[in-house]
Amino acid sequence: MATNLLVGGYTCPHVTANNVDERDQKTPDDWIPRHPDLIRLTGRHPFNCEPPLPKLAEHGFITPVSLHYVRNHGPPPKLDWDTHKIKIDGAVNNPVELSMNDLLTKFEQITMPVTLVCAGNRRKEQNMHKQGIGFSWGAAGLGTSVWTGVRLRDVLDYCGIKSWSEGAKHVCMGGADWLPGGGGSYYATSITRHVAMDWDAQNVILAWEQNGQRLTPDHGYPIRVVIPGYIGGRMIKWLTYITVTEQEDSTHYHYHDNRVLPPGIDAERAIAERWWYKPEYIINDLNINSAITSPGHDEIVTLMSGAVGTYKCKGYAYSGGGRKVTRVELSFDEGVTWDLCTLNHPERPTPAGKHWCWCFWEFDVPYMRLLRSKQMMVRAWDTGLNTQPMNFTWNVMGMMNNCTFKVRIHDLKEPVVPGGLSLQFEHPTQAGQLPGGWMVPKQTEEATPAAAPAKKVEDKPTAAAKASTKYFTEEEVAKHTEKDDCWFIYNGKVYDATSYMDDHPGGAESILLVAGEDATEEFDSLHSEKARNLLEQYCIGEVGAGEVGTSDESLLPAEETLYEKLGGEGA
Amino acid sequence: MATNLLVGGYTCPHVTANNVDERDQKTPDDWIPRHPDLIRLTGRHPFNCEPPLPKLAEHGFITPVSLHYVRNHGPPPKLDWDTHKIKIDGAVNNPVELSMNDLLTKFEQITMPVTLVCAGNRRKEQNMHKQGIGFSWGAAGLGTSVWTGVRLRDVLDYCGIKSWSEGAKHVCMGGADWLPGGGGSYYATSITRHVAMDWDAQNVILAWEQNGQRLTPDHGYPIRVVIPGYIGGRMIKWLTYITVTEQEDSTHYHYHDNRVLPPGIDAERAIAERWWYKPEYIINDLNINSAITSPGHDEIVTLMSGAVGTYKCKGYAYSGGGRKVTRVELSFDEGVTWDLCTLNHPERPTPAGKHWCWCFWEFDVPYMRLLRSKQMMVRAWDTGLNTQPMNFTWNVMGMMNNCTFKVRIHDLKEPVVPGGLSLQFEHPTQAGQLPGGWMVPKQTEEATPAAAPAKKVEDKPTAAAKASTKYFTEEEVAKHTEKDDCWFIYNGKVYDATSYMDDHPGGAESILLVAGEDATEEFDSLHSEKARNLLEQYCIGEVGAGEVGTSDESLLPAEETLYEKLGGEGA
Repeated sequence: MATNLLVGGYTCPHVTANNVDERDQKTPDDWIPRHPDLIRLTGRHPFNCEPPLPKLAEHGFITPVSLHYVRNHGPPPKLDWDTHKIKIDGAVNNPVELSMNDLLTKFEQITMPVTLVCAGNRRKEQNMHKQGIGFSWGAAGLGTSVWTGVRLRDVLDYCGIKSWSEGAKHVCMGGADWLPGGGGSYYATSITRHVAMDWDAQNVILAWEQNGQRLTPDHGYPIRVVIPGYIGGRMIKWLTYITVTEQEDSTHYHYHDNRVLPPGIDAERAIAERWWYKPEYIINDLNINSAITSPGHDEIVTLMSGAVGTYKCKGYAYSGGGRKVTRVELSFDEGVTWDLCTLNHPERPTPAGKHWCWCFWEFDVPYMRLLRSKQMMVRAWDTGLNTQPMNFTWNVMGMMNNCTFKVRIHDLKEPVVPGGLSLQFEHPTQAGQLPGGWMVPKQTEEATPAAAPAKKVEDKPTAAAKASTKYFTEEEVAKHTEKDDCWFIYNGKVYDATSYMDDHPGGAESILLVAGEDATEEFDSLHSEKARNLLEQYCIGEVGAGEVGTSDESLLPAEETLYEKLGGEGA
Repeated sequence: MATNLLVGGYTCPHVTANNVDERDQKTPDDWIPRHPDLIRLTGRHPFNCEPPLPKLAEHGFITPVSLHYVRNHGPPPKLDWDTHKIKIDGAVNNPVELSMNDLLTKFEQITMPVTLVCAGNRRKEQNMHKQGIGFSWGAAGLGTSVWTGVRLRDVLDYCGIKSWSEGAKHVCMGGADWLPGGGGSYYATSITRHVAMDWDAQNVILAWEQNGQRLTPDHGYPIRVVIPGYIGGRMIKWLTYITVTEQEDSTHYHYHDNRVLPPGIDAERAIAERWWYKPEYIINDLNINSAITSPGHDEIVTLMSGAVGTYKCKGYAYSGGGRKVTRVELSFDEGVTWDLCTLNHPERPTPAGKHWCWCFWEFDVPYMRLLRSKQMMVRAWDTGLNTQPMNFTWNVMGMMNNCTFKVRIHDLKEPVVPGGLSLQFEHPTQAGQLPGGWMVPKQTEEATPAAAPAKKVEDKPTAAAKASTKYFTEEEVAKHTEKDDCWFIYNGKVYDATSYMDDHPGGAESILLVAGEDATEEFDSLHSEKARNLLEQYCIGEVGAGEVGTSDESLLPAEETLYEKLGGEGA
């Protein structure tokens, strides 16, 4: 049921989600109500999701909390409002522990809308060119909420933050979510002192309310960080500590996540040559970006009596650094000419003139132009005169993808209504493992695993396996579900992961979630080509009752993607 | 003579320029010493110049004052250090007039390096696609100096600037240069209160020293504004007043200069549809940009014994908003792959982590790759994950051009040394009216007026002129040099400008500077196609002694430019 709340002068649509989804049963998240429409991007667990793009667009400026994208590295910790504390120490004169009640009573409260964007928004487009090490976000990895909390600056002032020259140069922040990365660590990161203290312009918030309601577990209950204009990955959820330091944060996730490396650097080189530690590749500010929400993917328009009138194209745009989106343009001729769209900025800019939220654009295109075009694309500009590149530059994390968003315009050979002219629109991708999109390699009709990655799955059975293939029934596989005896199925083959449980970068827990089951979707949504190759040494046979000659060829793309034929910008 | 000064910890090369250039004789600037190497971009007057690109590169991080680009809208006013005052009023509690002595004694002084860039840097590339309303900057419309002065914030605090809610929202600033624009006005503009007061991050300076020496007349003596990260056009020279206001500045140049309009908007539509007054098209922050300085234009490399070894490519890069340039890449294959360059940032970032200066990049390319490539191009990235577009989007002022900088690599059919292999490099353009550059339309051998614009000069003689062409000798033309009797020559034709003197947007003074002379170069460097068409109604004949059949065809491009064939991004 949808109702509206008025928060800080903004109308916030509220869509209830009271039930625990059946996909969350048997996972550590079996206590968290979630909206069933959310598209799951990493199988069942951990929970990473985005809403369907049309649903995101439908709600406009403020996104209902239950439909807001979620990025969880592990299970949300169960925290208690009354006992939760934030420990603040390091280069401060008065280290303290603050309860939620302290935060609510000791500091001025502020309420403001901020658009959060995952740095991986639109990553699936890059993954279709070449699978990187991140899962496949569509174009709905963002949302806008009205946040209520206190200023980080006020809290740091209260603790007597030391001066820059005394060594108070970075503000490290960590959450309560214990994760396997780096041999075990909390999810943490740091921002510079300047950003933390610059409330005049940037207003970093320690927030406990989203759209007028206390945070949900997925969004950091009871308290999280919100940094206007930054990528979501810096906004620590389930905040438990703040440490002021001379050096930037030293934890695993601060270095091994949220970086854009040059196009030639793949996962192996990144580690071997220590690219994760090179300071120039960290990402903080969002870059200029936009997408088309109308026409939607697979939308069909049928013209019955000539091409009279116009179609209203719509979409969103945003940028970072508080820069306003000043221009959005559509091209129907591959970028030779650009039409200026009408912009709508529902946000009231801050006194410092900053814009921290997305905006919306519209353009009425004559139907005749749609009929005469094979593709439409959008690009936005901001006050810094930055615009989106025509094509993306691939990077191993697939982050900050902001090339022009291109929607193909197909004519249907058989119109929906006889005598009419039907056009159908195709977005570049659909989120996660959903099929569809012109960048996705076309499969043969018979075997269409939506999960198939763009690049050829290196299929290297061991010599032994090849010589004498063993076959197992699904029932047999289903018996091996313990940490010391753990099998699973991937793309029709059976794997024994028992000896790998403790080495798995994602932890044994996440393998156990699929123990005894078909893990193809879970695996593909999270893993790189390298991981797929690694997997082969744990293959113990195939699923079946002894048939010979199952060919994996059917799983491979029937042809190179059109995108690859066109030649992407990335290496 | 070159010497070095150490200012604020930075080594500043000083190149003396003590003489008044003979081109400045008979102009209002006949008292200002200028370096003879500077390339004049607008004929003799007003003085607008950039250094030769190799000379700019040679001096590295800090640019000698005498070789720094200059953008003057009119003659520099003659101001006196001892009597000069800055009047500060508007939404302040204590309006004051401050002398230079007041500034030097009442406020804390700061010294810091800032790169200044004209918003028109690299405009000639856009003009080669279609002549806009600005003159042709090459890629040397920028320079870096160490500036000394006081913070604008401190001065405004001293005057008791009112609060934002009391109406102190904009800071208007004007210079002493009276100009003809808008029916007569001082050159002025405004910045937001936030930028003016944000000394922690942006540090707007009222500066009286450049590289440790008092300002020269061309750079704003005795005092000017320096706004780190902004386009040069907002940095008022010869500062005479500061007014704090509720609305942004209302003067002619604030609205009719330093704007980037969408590609479909030409000079006529801009005025007719009031595009100059639409707030979204103002420009302030610099955008990400880079250029190649080595290889230089026309540089030749000759390989004598195979293609052993590497060539060191070099150039500069900068961005706006304090964003550091984090990556510079070269492509030798039209953007399919990109090589990472080595970066050198001589600047010490501010405590807030801001970078206000250019940086330098290098890449050692194997000679064999040069031999196998037809073009090299460079692009830079900044911390905001902004990068340069592949092609520019034309705008009527040709500002903020930051597409990839492309240098063509030609093989010389006849090597410089017999038996060798000679490659010659060609930049896109050369500054001002200098010939050369692959974007410049090729002329026939006989008639190569360097001044010819890229687009066909509309040649519409009046019917009367066509019927009976009158001929005048140069001696005859030279007699008409007064305001009430003013002729000049343009492209071989004679014009009587007498009746137009008071209507000229640039003022009668600038026509008088070329009275009785050949004004072709002066005219072409400043005027749009529209102005050329307007000119025709003042044509009274041609230069010559009665020859018949002078053909203007020789003035037209022999062929479409390669760039046009390739299809630019702009409309």
